[in-house]
Amino acid sequence: MAASEATFTGPALRVTDIGTLAAVPPGPLTGAQMRSIPIIRDAVLLIENRRIAWFGPAAEAPAADAIPALSAAGGCLIPGLIDPHTHIPFAGERSGEFVRRIGGESYLSIMQSGGGIRVTTQAVRQASRDELVRLNLPRLRRMLSLGTTTVECKSGYGLAPEHELKQLRAIRGLDLLQPIDLVPTYLGAHALPVEFDGRADEFIDTIASEQLLSEIAREGLARFCDVFCDRGAFTVEQARRVLQRAAAAGLKPKLHADELAQIGATLLAGELAAVSADHLELIDEGGLAALKAAGAVAVVLPGTSFFLGIPHCDARRLIEADLPVALATDCNPGSSMIESLPLIMNIAACQLRMLPLEVLSACTANAAAALDLHKRRGAIARGFDADLVVLDTPSLEEWFYTPGRPRVQTVIKRGEIVYERSDDGAA
Amino acid sequence: MAASEATFTGPALRVTDIGTLAAVPPGPLTGAQMRSIPIIRDAVLLIENRRIAWFGPAAEAPAADAIPALSAAGGCLIPGLIDPHTHIPFAGERSGEFVRRIGGESYLSIMQSGGGIRVTTQAVRQASRDELVRLNLPRLRRMLSLGTTTVECKSGYGLAPEHELKQLRAIRGLDLLQPIDLVPTYLGAHALPVEFDGRADEFIDTIASEQLLSEIAREGLARFCDVFCDRGAFTVEQARRVLQRAAAAGLKPKLHADELAQIGATLLAGELAAVSADHLELIDEGGLAALKAAGAVAVVLPGTSFFLGIPHCDARRLIEADLPVALATDCNPGSSMIESLPLIMNIAACQLRMLPLEVLSACTANAAAALDLHKRRGAIARGFDADLVVLDTPSLEEWFYTPGRPRVQTVIKRGEIVYERSDDGAA
Repeated sequence: MAASEATFTGPALRVTDIGTLAAVPPGPLTGAQMRSIPIIRDAVLLIENRRIAWFGPAAEAPAADAIPALSAAGGCLIPGLIDPHTHIPFAGERSGEFVRRIGGESYLSIMQSGGGIRVTTQAVRQASRDELVRLNLPRLRRMLSLGTTTVECKSGYGLAPEHELKQLRAIRGLDLLQPIDLVPTYLGAHALPVEFDGRADEFIDTIASEQLLSEIAREGLARFCDVFCDRGAFTVEQARRVLQRAAAAGLKPKLHADELAQIGATLLAGELAAVSADHLELIDEGGLAALKAAGAVAVVLPGTSFFLGIPHCDARRLIEADLPVALATDCNPGSSMIESLPLIMNIAACQLRMLPLEVLSACTANAAAALDLHKRRGAIARGFDADLVVLDTPSLEEWFYTPGRPRVQTVIKRGEIVYERSDDGAA
Repeated sequence: MAASEATFTGPALRVTDIGTLAAVPPGPLTGAQMRSIPIIRDAVLLIENRRIAWFGPAAEAPAADAIPALSAAGGCLIPGLIDPHTHIPFAGERSGEFVRRIGGESYLSIMQSGGGIRVTTQAVRQASRDELVRLNLPRLRRMLSLGTTTVECKSGYGLAPEHELKQLRAIRGLDLLQPIDLVPTYLGAHALPVEFDGRADEFIDTIASEQLLSEIAREGLARFCDVFCDRGAFTVEQARRVLQRAAAAGLKPKLHADELAQIGATLLAGELAAVSADHLELIDEGGLAALKAAGAVAVVLPGTSFFLGIPHCDARRLIEADLPVALATDCNPGSSMIESLPLIMNIAACQLRMLPLEVLSACTANAAAALDLHKRRGAIARGFDADLVVLDTPSLEEWFYTPGRPRVQTVIKRGEIVYERSDDGAA
């Protein structure tokens, strides 16, 4: 069967012949919890009304012969992967800039010759909402085939009210057209557009006006508001202003924090009880304490450091500080043109020295917590959304041990089989 | 069409609608040559008798309407990728050891508790030749789907004459059963087996006996002889003895050199005019000069450093020293369980700062030179083997810019279409 023909299996499904069921508990998970996932061998899982109704050892499974069965063929069953930080949708591409950077050119020099984020802003401004949908739909289809079932999507390339709204409406369009659930975040304060050079505070007032924020909230166009709070982006004071106004309109705060310089962005995340603080390459002890006190999720983005060839975030330090650590692709055309959460997971295991079960927790339970969805997604628990992935190996360890090898056999979204790998001889 | 059904297209084929033809010249390529690949836009390539008969701009192509055509649909055409250093075939798996190492355990401690290379030796000794073939055939099928058309395969897990011969005969069996050309290397001096503890010189005499080497040469079971010459493996003196005897039997020298310690292995590679010296993380100025004087290819293995989480080889230094640099997966169950040359290419670009064209040269012309095949493979040149890959993008830069995204559309081996990606909605 071609994987493009999604099979609707009705409201009930039995997944049988599960060699290894990774029963990830609901997040957020911290410290040793992240690496203590209960494992059930030779398991069965039942889905009713798009939710997980039962799971456990096959020998104890309730009789359910009338329910259609999907065999996991002895492979692993894990929760659907959740990507809690992307800059999808975007337009244009910056591969030339990528090559110049490999050749030793600095980001500053690339920016000064007309490159950088402003190239993407120009392309997004020129694209219609429908074009943004058309350009990004194949990206989401590919992500689904890699096991990703929920994706956070940010605006932040429009950088003007009409174009930010267009990006958010494109996310809504994309959400309706394919199986992955998209969680929209408003990132109007991503960068200063050229027409506001030297007038950052005025820009802040434009993209964080009461009128715009209430329109976004009223139409349900975003659930979160994010700000790039860093050297060369926006100050702590500007970020506080945006996020406080957004919170008043009902958008929960997130922050790009401690990536390029330590300016106190994680302290602000703590002060505002942000849902997550993302990047954290340069987090300090004060930032760790602030995030912990606030219960914020620490979202680590190793694809960015891999793609840029710069030092990785010290994820072990975050785990040892008992923060719930999540991982994400940061998929964007400038600093991480990576759609594959499995590649991010390989980088996290091999380079960041996160144990396989820690990585799995980071891409499921804790990623759900970074999107405030941990009460219904990211875990294998009764009543949770039946978002599930079948791997072609019975060994979770082997999945991590074979970087670059596609192991996703079947993807289930809310109880429906939405992707099956075709047997094309490359398996 | 399912990709597993190989389409035989007869002795002649036209590849049309090539958006970008990367006309890699025959290797070895050094310095600026590596990044100065001629690019032909809107091109056509003709294949006759399994070889490249003509290529150039479509407007200048000879009339050939009677010849079956394959459309590249505007994508790139590149030479088939060549993987010049793998430890295929092997048996068993060491994912548990992989996880223990992530958890902070040292290789020494893992070895002392019964892990390490001896686990693989035990598994290979227990496997029959046919089992080795069966276990490794799917691996080669997957590599083909990633664009790899020639693979060097080493023995070196048998570590006793009968088991080394069995491994080499498994390579021959694998070569006959699938489209990738396998180039066999005898690596009897890979590690000291447990029964020879403290008797390395005796072991050397066993696996480098005149009788064994002449049997290998007579049956054509290997073209090269390789030695792991490093701290904890074999000394320069032992390596010299093996490689001199092997050369007398007709096997050309290769060396695992300068990986764990600087003990003069690259000087030996120069002295013996080795075809290649591989690893080179710790190469010094003397080693650079020795390789350059000998015309040896420098084979860099960034998958190993990625997989182990250790510092990469400084490939830029090797390129700037005018050595022909090649890349390989080092696919093996202990230190690089990576089959994907495209993943290696992404690591080389993003982490080793090799430019896309340098990486392409390293995986084609220079990889062919590392296998002494550069007079007929690794290039797009008239008379060369028609080993070719069609990518689904017109931009070579974009291929490198999208790590983790499969871009191989079609693989041609000696003029036959041997892999076509099925359109499974994930493209």
